[in-house]
Amino acid sequence: MEKAKIEFIPGGIVTSPQGFCAGATYAGIKKRARYNLDLGILFSEEPCVAAAMFTTNKVKSAPVMLNQERLKTGRAVALIANSGCANSSTGEPGLADAAEMAALAAQAIGAEPEDVLVASTGVIGQPLPMPLIREAVRHIALSEEGGHDFARAIMTTDTVPKEAAVAVSIGDTKFTIGGVAKGSGMIHPNLATMFSFLTTDAVVELQFLRSALHQAVGISFNMVSVDGDTSPSDIVLLMANGRAKNPPISAGSLLAGIFQQALNQICIHLAKAIARDGEGATKLIEVTISGAVSLDDARLAARTVVTSPLVKTAVHGADPNWGRILVAVGRSGADMEQSKVDLYIGDINVLKGGRPQQYSEDSVVQVFSQKEVPIRVDLNLGSASATAWGCDLSKEYVTINSQYMT
Amino acid sequence: MEKAKIEFIPGGIVTSPQGFCAGATYAGIKKRARYNLDLGILFSEEPCVAAAMFTTNKVKSAPVMLNQERLKTGRAVALIANSGCANSSTGEPGLADAAEMAALAAQAIGAEPEDVLVASTGVIGQPLPMPLIREAVRHIALSEEGGHDFARAIMTTDTVPKEAAVAVSIGDTKFTIGGVAKGSGMIHPNLATMFSFLTTDAVVELQFLRSALHQAVGISFNMVSVDGDTSPSDIVLLMANGRAKNPPISAGSLLAGIFQQALNQICIHLAKAIARDGEGATKLIEVTISGAVSLDDARLAARTVVTSPLVKTAVHGADPNWGRILVAVGRSGADMEQSKVDLYIGDINVLKGGRPQQYSEDSVVQVFSQKEVPIRVDLNLGSASATAWGCDLSKEYVTINSQYMT
Repeated sequence: MEKAKIEFIPGGIVTSPQGFCAGATYAGIKKRARYNLDLGILFSEEPCVAAAMFTTNKVKSAPVMLNQERLKTGRAVALIANSGCANSSTGEPGLADAAEMAALAAQAIGAEPEDVLVASTGVIGQPLPMPLIREAVRHIALSEEGGHDFARAIMTTDTVPKEAAVAVSIGDTKFTIGGVAKGSGMIHPNLATMFSFLTTDAVVELQFLRSALHQAVGISFNMVSVDGDTSPSDIVLLMANGRAKNPPISAGSLLAGIFQQALNQICIHLAKAIARDGEGATKLIEVTISGAVSLDDARLAARTVVTSPLVKTAVHGADPNWGRILVAVGRSGADMEQSKVDLYIGDINVLKGGRPQQYSEDSVVQVFSQKEVPIRVDLNLGSASATAWGCDLSKEYVTINSQYMT
Repeated sequence: MEKAKIEFIPGGIVTSPQGFCAGATYAGIKKRARYNLDLGILFSEEPCVAAAMFTTNKVKSAPVMLNQERLKTGRAVALIANSGCANSSTGEPGLADAAEMAALAAQAIGAEPEDVLVASTGVIGQPLPMPLIREAVRHIALSEEGGHDFARAIMTTDTVPKEAAVAVSIGDTKFTIGGVAKGSGMIHPNLATMFSFLTTDAVVELQFLRSALHQAVGISFNMVSVDGDTSPSDIVLLMANGRAKNPPISAGSLLAGIFQQALNQICIHLAKAIARDGEGATKLIEVTISGAVSLDDARLAARTVVTSPLVKTAVHGADPNWGRILVAVGRSGADMEQSKVDLYIGDINVLKGGRPQQYSEDSVVQVFSQKEVPIRVDLNLGSASATAWGCDLSKEYVTINSQYMT
C-alpha cells in the first residue's frame, strides 16, 4: 500500500476542505464580543453525511434536542451558531426559537430547514433575542475564508480562536479535514460547554462516520477538563460532503485507518487547544496513566488528576506538592495498589513502588513552571494507558466565573 | 417515655464528657502554626469502646493503616495527633514511625501502645521528624480543659478551631457527646483531609456505636465538600468511656434513638463548621435536593452542586447565574427530567417545571450575598431528600493552594 501522509495545513480552518464556506456577523446577543461577532453560519455547497455527539448532561439545550432529532437522518447541509445565549432551560418557546433560527439560516442559504442544525452557547435560562437574530442573519456573507470569522463568532470566554485543518494524501487520493472548537469553562470529560465543528471533503459512509467520530472524541474532547462542570449545550459535529471524490470510506475499507488517524489528530489538537485556553489558564497539564488494569480505569484516573483543584493550584503556583497527584488517582475509583505506583513529573521520578525517591525539589518546580506540564503515573498493574489534558487553576478563573453575568 | 433533651453546651469541647482529658504542644513539625501547637494527645481515664471511619482513598496514610488494624478490637484509650506532616506515601518506615508515635504517647500516659491511635495531617510524601516528636511528647500536659489546645494542634489551613459538645438528658439519665474537627482543603464526600474526634461518657455497646457513627457520618461529614479532593488521612473517631453509667445503649434499646439524634446533631454541626471554614471560603452553601427517586440520587445531586466550581464562583461573586445549579444536577448522574424541576434560591422560585419564573434578579443577588446561602432543588420524581454543605470558591483558595509547600 502507498505511503499515507497526514499534514497540518498552516492557517487551516473549518472551511479548508473543498465545498465548505462560512461567515459571521454581530447580532448583539453577546454584550462583550471580543471580535464583535456572535452569530455565524457554516455551509456546505453539497449535502453532507453528518454525525454528531452531544452533551451527556440531563439538562439539554433546545438546540441539542433539535439536532438530536434532525441528525437521525444522518444528513445536514449547514449549521447556524451563536454565542451569548445558550437557549437552555427555556421550555417550549426555546425549542420554537431554535427551529426558527434554523429556518432563518435555511432561507438565507436556500436550503431545507430540516437540513440545518443549530448551536447556541452562553447564559442558561434566558430566551434568545429573536428580533436581533432575524435582522442579523441577512448580513452574514458566506465565503471560503469565512471559517475565520465563524471561529470567532462562537467564542465565549475563549481568549483565542481554535481552528485547524489536516491534509491527507495516500497515492492519488487526497482529502482534507477541517475543524473549529470553542471552550473554555464548563469543560469536562463527556463533553462540556464546548463546540467542535468538523468538516471534510472525503466521501465517507454514514455508519463509519459515526463510529470514527465516536472513537476520536473518546481520546480527545472526552479527555479534556477545565473545571469538572459540563453544560447542556455541547456538540461535536462532523460533516462530510464528498467533494474529494475518493473511494468511499467505510469500516474496513482501505482508507478507513488513515481517515481515523487524521480525525484523531485534529480532534486531539483542538481538544488540547481548549484545555490550554481554559478559563484563567496559564499552563497546559498533560496527564498520562499507564499500567492500568483497563482502558476505563486509565481514562478515569487521568481525568481525575487533571480535574483536581489541588493538582491544578499546585501546578499554577509551581508548588512541588506531587502527593496531590497520587491521592487524586487514589480517589478516582481506578484500581491501584499504592505500593506499586511510579510517578514522574516530566522526566523526574519522584515516587517508585510507592516510595519517595531522591530528587531535586527545584527540578520539579522547573517542570511545573513550564507552559506544558507532563505528568506520568504508572500503576504497574496492567497494560492499559490513557492521556488527559487540563489546565492550571488561577485567580483569573475565579474572577471570570464570579462575574459571568454581572 | 420521659421527654428527652439535647442541648449544645456553650463553649463545649472534645473533653466536655466526663473522664476525658487532652493537651498539646509545639513540636516544630509545622512551620507556620497559627496557635503555635502541632502535636496533641486526647486521653480517656478509662478504656473506651471505639469506632471509626476512614478515608475511602486508595492511597492511605500510615496512621490510617495502623488505626484500621488496631480498631478491630473496638477498644482504645487515647489518640496522638499531629499537623504539618501526613506521614503518607512514606512506605514501611512511615508505618514504623506511626507505631512509635503511638508508643511514645502510651509511655507518657501509662497505657498499652496497642490501645493508642494515631492521626497525622499535612504534606504527603515526607517522613515525620521523629526526633522532634520524641522530645515534644514529654511536654504535653493533659487536663480536662485541654480539648481547646488539642483542637488547635490539629489545625492546618483552618482559620478557626472547630469544637462542640451536646448534653443529653432523659429522665435521670444524662450523658454528653463532645467533638473536635479540622478541615479545610481536600474536603469531599466520603471523607477528606479531615479529622473529627468524638467522645462520649455514655455506655454504648460496640456494634451500635459503629452503626450510629456510620449513620451520623453519612448525613454530615460525607455531605460536605470544599474542593472535591479527598486525602489519605481522613479519620472520624468516636470513643465511649461509659462514665455516665447509663443503661447500656444498643440497637433497639430505649436510649438508642436519642443517642443517634445527639450524635447526628454534633456531627452536622462540625461538618458545617468545616464547610464554612473551607480554604478561602467566605460563605456557607447549603443545598437540599428533594423529590429524588432514591436517597443515593438525592445525596449525589446535592454533593455535585456544592462541588461545582461554577456554582461556587457564582455564589462567591453573587452572580445570579442559577443555570449552573441546574446543570450540576444534570451531570450528577441522579435521575432527573428537566421539565419537572423546581429551583429555589433562598425562598425565590426561579424555575418551576423546568421553566424560568418571574423574579427579581436583585433578590437572587441578595441571597447569594448572605453568609449562608440556601439552595433547594425539587426534582418532583420521588420522595427522597438530602442536604449537602459547601463553600464558595475565592481567589484566596487559589493563593492558599498554589503556595502550600513553598
